[in-house]
Amino acid sequence: MSKRRRNRSAEKLLGTSPGTLTYVGQEIEHAIKIKRIDYNATDYHIDDRSRLSACKLPNTESPYVSWVDVDGIHEPKVVAALGQQYHLHPLLLEDVLNTEQKPKIDLYDDTVVFVTLKMLHHSHQLQEIDIEHVSLVLGKNYLISFQEERTKDIFQPVIDRIKASSGKTRRNGADYLLYALMDVIVDHYFVITERIGDKMDELEEQIVQEQATQQTLATLYKLKRELAFIRRTVNPLRDMIGLLLRGESELIQHSTMPFLSDLSDHINQVIETLESYRELIAGLMDVYYSIVNNRMNSVMKTLTIVSAIFIPLTFIAGIYGMNFSNMPELRSPTGYFWTLFVMAFIALGEIIYFKRRGWM
Amino acid sequence: MSKRRRNRSAEKLLGTSPGTLTYVGQEIEHAIKIKRIDYNATDYHIDDRSRLSACKLPNTESPYVSWVDVDGIHEPKVVAALGQQYHLHPLLLEDVLNTEQKPKIDLYDDTVVFVTLKMLHHSHQLQEIDIEHVSLVLGKNYLISFQEERTKDIFQPVIDRIKASSGKTRRNGADYLLYALMDVIVDHYFVITERIGDKMDELEEQIVQEQATQQTLATLYKLKRELAFIRRTVNPLRDMIGLLLRGESELIQHSTMPFLSDLSDHINQVIETLESYRELIAGLMDVYYSIVNNRMNSVMKTLTIVSAIFIPLTFIAGIYGMNFSNMPELRSPTGYFWTLFVMAFIALGEIIYFKRRGWM
Amino acid sequence: MSKRRRNRSAEKLLGTSPGTLTYVGQEIEHAIKIKRIDYNATDYHIDDRSRLSACKLPNTESPYVSWVDVDGIHEPKVVAALGQQYHLHPLLLEDVLNTEQKPKIDLYDDTVVFVTLKMLHHSHQLQEIDIEHVSLVLGKNYLISFQEERTKDIFQPVIDRIKASSGKTRRNGADYLLYALMDVIVDHYFVITERIGDKMDELEEQIVQEQATQQTLATLYKLKRELAFIRRTVNPLRDMIGLLLRGESELIQHSTMPFLSDLSDHINQVIETLESYRELIAGLMDVYYSIVNNRMNSVMKTLTIVSAIFIPLTFIAGIYGMNFSNMPELRSPTGYFWTLFVMAFIALGEIIYFKRRGWM
Amino acid sequence: MSKRRRNRSAEKLLGTSPGTLTYVGQEIEHAIKIKRIDYNATDYHIDDRSRLSACKLPNTESPYVSWVDVDGIHEPKVVAALGQQYHLHPLLLEDVLNTEQKPKIDLYDDTVVFVTLKMLHHSHQLQEIDIEHVSLVLGKNYLISFQEERTKDIFQPVIDRIKASSGKTRRNGADYLLYALMDVIVDHYFVITERIGDKMDELEEQIVQEQATQQTLATLYKLKRELAFIRRTVNPLRDMIGLLLRGESELIQHSTMPFLSDLSDHINQVIETLESYRELIAGLMDVYYSIVNNRMNSVMKTLTIVSAIFIPLTFIAGIYGMNFSNMPELRSPTGYFWTLFVMAFIALGEIIYFKRRGWM
Amino acid sequence: MSKRRRNRSAEKLLGTSPGTLTYVGQEIEHAIKIKRIDYNATDYHIDDRSRLSACKLPNTESPYVSWVDVDGIHEPKVVAALGQQYHLHPLLLEDVLNTEQKPKIDLYDDTVVFVTLKMLHHSHQLQEIDIEHVSLVLGKNYLISFQEERTKDIFQPVIDRIKASSGKTRRNGADYLLYALMDVIVDHYFVITERIGDKMDELEEQIVQEQATQQTLATLYKLKRELAFIRRTVNPLRDMIGLLLRGESELIQHSTMPFLSDLSDHINQVIETLESYRELIAGLMDVYYSIVNNRMNSVMKTLTIVSAIFIPLTFIAGIYGMNFSNMPELRSPTGYFWTLFVMAFIALGEIIYFKRRGWM
Repeated sequence: MSKRRRNRSAEKLLGTSPGTLTYVGQEIEHAIKIKRIDYNATDYHIDDRSRLSACKLPNTESPYVSWVDVDGIHEPKVVAALGQQYHLHPLLLEDVLNTEQKPKIDLYDDTVVFVTLKMLHHSHQLQEIDIEHVSLVLGKNYLISFQEERTKDIFQPVIDRIKASSGKTRRNGADYLLYALMDVIVDHYFVITERIGDKMDELEEQIVQEQATQQTLATLYKLKRELAFIRRTVNPLRDMIGLLLRGESELIQHSTMPFLSDLSDHINQVIETLESYRELIAGLMDVYYSIVNNRMNSVMKTLTIVSAIFIPLTFIAGIYGMNFSNMPELRSPTGYFWTLFVMAFIALGEIIYFKRRGWM
Repeated sequence: MSKRRRNRSAEKLLGTSPGTLTYVGQEIEHAIKIKRIDYNATDYHIDDRSRLSACKLPNTESPYVSWVDVDGIHEPKVVAALGQQYHLHPLLLEDVLNTEQKPKIDLYDDTVVFVTLKMLHHSHQLQEIDIEHVSLVLGKNYLISFQEERTKDIFQPVIDRIKASSGKTRRNGADYLLYALMDVIVDHYFVITERIGDKMDELEEQIVQEQATQQTLATLYKLKRELAFIRRTVNPLRDMIGLLLRGESELIQHSTMPFLSDLSDHINQVIETLESYRELIAGLMDVYYSIVNNRMNSVMKTLTIVSAIFIPLTFIAGIYGMNFSNMPELRSPTGYFWTLFVMAFIALGEIIYFKRRGWM
Repeated sequence: MSKRRRNRSAEKLLGTSPGTLTYVGQEIEHAIKIKRIDYNATDYHIDDRSRLSACKLPNTESPYVSWVDVDGIHEPKVVAALGQQYHLHPLLLEDVLNTEQKPKIDLYDDTVVFVTLKMLHHSHQLQEIDIEHVSLVLGKNYLISFQEERTKDIFQPVIDRIKASSGKTRRNGADYLLYALMDVIVDHYFVITERIGDKMDELEEQIVQEQATQQTLATLYKLKRELAFIRRTVNPLRDMIGLLLRGESELIQHSTMPFLSDLSDHINQVIETLESYRELIAGLMDVYYSIVNNRMNSVMKTLTIVSAIFIPLTFIAGIYGMNFSNMPELRSPTGYFWTLFVMAFIALGEIIYFKRRGWM
Repeated sequence: MSKRRRNRSAEKLLGTSPGTLTYVGQEIEHAIKIKRIDYNATDYHIDDRSRLSACKLPNTESPYVSWVDVDGIHEPKVVAALGQQYHLHPLLLEDVLNTEQKPKIDLYDDTVVFVTLKMLHHSHQLQEIDIEHVSLVLGKNYLISFQEERTKDIFQPVIDRIKASSGKTRRNGADYLLYALMDVIVDHYFVITERIGDKMDELEEQIVQEQATQQTLATLYKLKRELAFIRRTVNPLRDMIGLLLRGESELIQHSTMPFLSDLSDHINQVIETLESYRELIAGLMDVYYSIVNNRMNSVMKTLTIVSAIFIPLTFIAGIYGMNFSNMPELRSPTGYFWTLFVMAFIALGEIIYFKRRGWM
Repeated sequence: MSKRRRNRSAEKLLGTSPGTLTYVGQEIEHAIKIKRIDYNATDYHIDDRSRLSACKLPNTESPYVSWVDVDGIHEPKVVAALGQQYHLHPLLLEDVLNTEQKPKIDLYDDTVVFVTLKMLHHSHQLQEIDIEHVSLVLGKNYLISFQEERTKDIFQPVIDRIKASSGKTRRNGADYLLYALMDVIVDHYFVITERIGDKMDELEEQIVQEQATQQTLATLYKLKRELAFIRRTVNPLRDMIGLLLRGESELIQHSTMPFLSDLSDHINQVIETLESYRELIAGLMDVYYSIVNNRMNSVMKTLTIVSAIFIPLTFIAGIYGMNFSNMPELRSPTGYFWTLFVMAFIALGEIIYFKRRGWM
């Protein structure tokens, strides 16, 4: 997990001119897939395998919202061509390609709102969180979405909703579409945190029932790192939505505000949940350590009690095991029994002492 | 406790359109109960089992304050119908139903103030805090309150005060009613924190008198989690009241401000108490660990003293237990007594040494 | 200490209407004592046992500053009557009676400045800090001070200064009197922190000279709690004075500002001292734990050295204590001496090894 | 590493007048090298070994951007002369020479923007980070860059780009050059953090596979210090760029803003990476300690089990090793075998007990 | 050190009127020394032992800057007289005398800037930091400096510079003098932090080379307290200079601003260095504890290995030391050798086991 997230290319890129388009993510063989969806309240048209040339900056008076859904960002040339057709800034395109880019929002001269964020999946086979770099470019009447190529288009539910009926998505503009796409991504954050929550319930059970092992701690530590990672992914979104809510871009219509505000609420809820999980993990670690410590104390007490009782007795036995020629006690017929009696007395005394101090 | 609080429905809701009304709380069989209370300084009318159709947006010139007290939110249809009759935003209704929604305030276009917060009860049988999702919708002349269904209507004391006499509640408007309902909830926070305080006194007693066990620590840890949970429930209220106090809604009259300011004080007092409890718990944990550590040290010292005294003596006994044919000391008639004397001398020396170092 | 500070009445008050006057402090039998002091630069009149009816809202053109010093707040009726005569808001009176109220300042419509804060005494017999709830009501030309009843009137020094000479207090208005009374209280904070400082010097001495016991730690922990409590009492004052310094009330004259600014300095100094004490306590605890740990290490080392030296030697003695019929060494006339020599050699080797590793 | 970074000259400088030019860095023998580069979109001229006198304040109407690249700051006289020719403030020159100066930005009357920051290299032979003090003076049409002398000019890539083609650098003004030079430095921060990341992966591997030693911890601690150092170097840059982005200097043209904003992003990414590394190190340390603790527990358990089993058995053996004349058991022909049986029984009982408690 | 810093006089001052002039510092016998320096760019006059009466508020048109350097603040009467001659506020004079006053700046009606701060010396004989309370009063054309009496006038270097030549100090006004005096004090902070840095290098060396003792820890702890103390002394200066830089006083001329800004830089550098030292100390403590812990682990391992090997062997020897009449093995001629062989085998097995687990 840690490997993919680090920007391995730093040294390679040293000295290249800023704005150079380079793809730094995983290598992929398929060609980039482009879907083009034009829709309004009454009508829609979907082209699942659009040609690049068909994607053009729509007329600002166009009655349709034009959504270009680009699945795959591993061909810098294609992205560059798209960028040229939509007059996008080279630095914007650089951020689209840079899978290491952290979530951010950029307003380009009130004509373009650029949002980049991370999709998080639980990849089942790898037992880790899979991160997908997503970028959204909102202009007047159009929206372009870029995503890394995976087995599934993450925006399929929105496409399905557009197909299904003339609902909220169809009746609203491109800014609502921006919201809807971000909402899909934020919904996945809930799923991820929920899974972590389940995992944590399991670990808590283990720890509270004193069945935790070194492995449990390692898992807690791994969860802690995952939480930190998700936090870093989700936190910037709060400020990003905040910027839109303050009305800093004219591309966002007034009617979309309540939805963005709702989205902001959801993000806060995710952040708060993450925060509470972090506290919970810290608490669980404390409990674990205290249990381990407690067990250690039991071990030490056992050692002490056994040693403290038997070492003195062994000494007494040692005394009468000596081979001195003149040892009067040895010749007494009751010496052996008296010795046993004294030993029993000492042992009893010690047991009483330990009981009193609460060690037994 | 942790189970109910987690948003179990995240995965289920994945892909549904925003604003879809879904109830995610506990399943309940009874029908929703609706009380309708109309009152002013001179008169009042209470309908304990109002029909849904009787609840309508009152005329803005109505001489009565109209309060609709909805007990139960498990029937999305009923809530949706009420929402339609009062022209409420779908996102508002979504928040009413979403028992996982954290406390917040929303102003809808100066015509509606929407407040959602959490009622906390101590459920006696379960030894846990029971959380109830409460929503308040304030409009011109009217207020709608939603609560999850429990055995008791939490707003009964306010209804009783309305019945009882023409007091402050009757003489003021719907905004004062909003304050009065929030005040009831905040008063319960005091009860909860007081109970936690009692529990903490008990634990402190146990710890200071060195009677604490691993169980005590577990309880401390549980209290810590409860405090964290209450903190997350109460903290947002401070900002919510702050927003009203800044006069951001015209629905709040000037005469209600001192009361809201007083409520704000109460919330701060709860928060401060929670904060001081948190510090107290951290301190108690430190003391507990230090006592455990101290006890461990006593155990180790005992082991060391016993071992350090008897192991050398046993060695000496072992020497004279050897069966060499030529051991001159063994034949000496006073050898045994000299040996005993030397052993006593060594033991005494060690005891003096340990006393000097403060180990005995 | 912790008992008094908790709001024991939360459950009892549940459901009462806001603004109900209830006294929640300690029960007291004496009647409330009221002193009335009227003064200006040339003249003064003091009535030590004023009747309630004599206390009236003075004419705004009155040439005298009128100070009503109320000693005792355990009779809600008396306070309510006073409140009516001076037209005070019910919520203000509620705060005067509520001994659990935390320090705060309230401006009521530019005609009244309400300040409530805590007097701290060191009660000698109880070895604890005694807290007294004090409220100050500043109006045009008049000031009312409320304090819980104790053996001594805390404002006596100010009364004495008024009697003594026509000094700064006499020459200034009611706002300077407000400052003077707060100054008396803040001066006591210095005394309290100084005593805690003395106590801490003592503990530091104990710890650094390695004479600390479990008791020392308990005292440190108690001091830590006291510091936290004082911090919570003093901290709000900073903001309270800040509000007055920003000129938010017209009742505070320009000439009083430098004095309030000086008071603000003093409060900051107290807060800073508390902060440095907190750091100091944390440091002392660390040193204590490190000393305890160090001592434990010495104990363990002693155990290890004694065991590691004598256990192998005892084993050798054990070998030659066996009763096998055929043990050639036993018959050698020098076997015993060789064995002793080998034992000495082993012991010496171990001692050298331990010295090298720095364990001895 | 720590040695170079401390301001060794504090005591020496005591009492000198402010603004005195003194070089406090490493002593160097070579003369300062000055490169002069004049360029615009169509043309460029590079003088690799420029004479000092050739560097003059260019005419504000000059069609060229004039860049003076000063390699070495160990000759205060040369720097002072340059300062005079470009009318630079004495305090600015003091900061150029003061290698202990932390990164900062200063605006001198809208005619000069002064930026000082740190170049970080990984010096391969010394296994440490090498710090180079860099200062940039931006004026109308010109830029002066100062760097400590090392084997390589750190700005060579920019010179190469100017030579190579009429790209972005050539087509833009001196403010873009400022950005380009800062970008070169920030790119090196990525390289440094990447190397630390590699080192940390290595350590994590070691720790998770339980092969960590005391040395591993020392390396973690060293990395932590390096991170803290880099953080202090990089953090001020965020505010510095922020100041330029707010348009506080007229020397920065509007077209350069997106590039500065991009640079700001990069800096944030470095800071965030450093932050996540810090958390990671803390986590790794916790894991390391927990593993060490765990190992210690195994050691103690082994000791306890061995002792608890064999000490009582040895005692029994000791009993029958006593030489009392009257010990009936000794004469029983099966006594020996019964004793062995009892010993085996005791040992077995203890083993079962330990297994049950989970110690074995 | 802690003793002097505490305000011992709190209880004594209880009840005195605010503004009463009382000296609370160390008792001193000498009389206060007053130096009067009048200077401008062309001329200067220094009176080393000025009479009090010679110090008068200069004419605002005076061509000279008039500096009154008061060495000693232990005679309240003298300070009061000076205050009267310069029309200074009583609270200002109180702060001049109060050696417990923390650093602060006060603007008195745009006619006086009052600065109070702390001079720090390393007192060589006492191995501690010596604190000197310094106050600076800046008016139009004049400056009065107050310092506690020590062996040396701390402002002598500035007097020397005035004497030496017509430099920056002579050419500028009283505000530059204020800067110059503060600069002298801040320069001493560098010296102090540098010495602490040296001490810390020494301790780090000790710790890393594992030669640290309990004493090392005590020194670290003492350094930590010193750092905390210096931090509290230096931190307020940042805000104080900030206030002057924002141009809140007209007494500070525009040309002095860059110097104040430079001073602010220096203060930030001191604060940052202190901060990095604090982190360093925390890190060193961690390393120290880890080394101690490690050593403890070695001790325990040694104990465990020796015990685990020899206790079972001793048991076997004990078996054959028993005196049962019927023990067949004893009569076997090779029994002894077989027993030795078995013992060696067991010991070897244990050694291999311990090696495998990495304990040896």
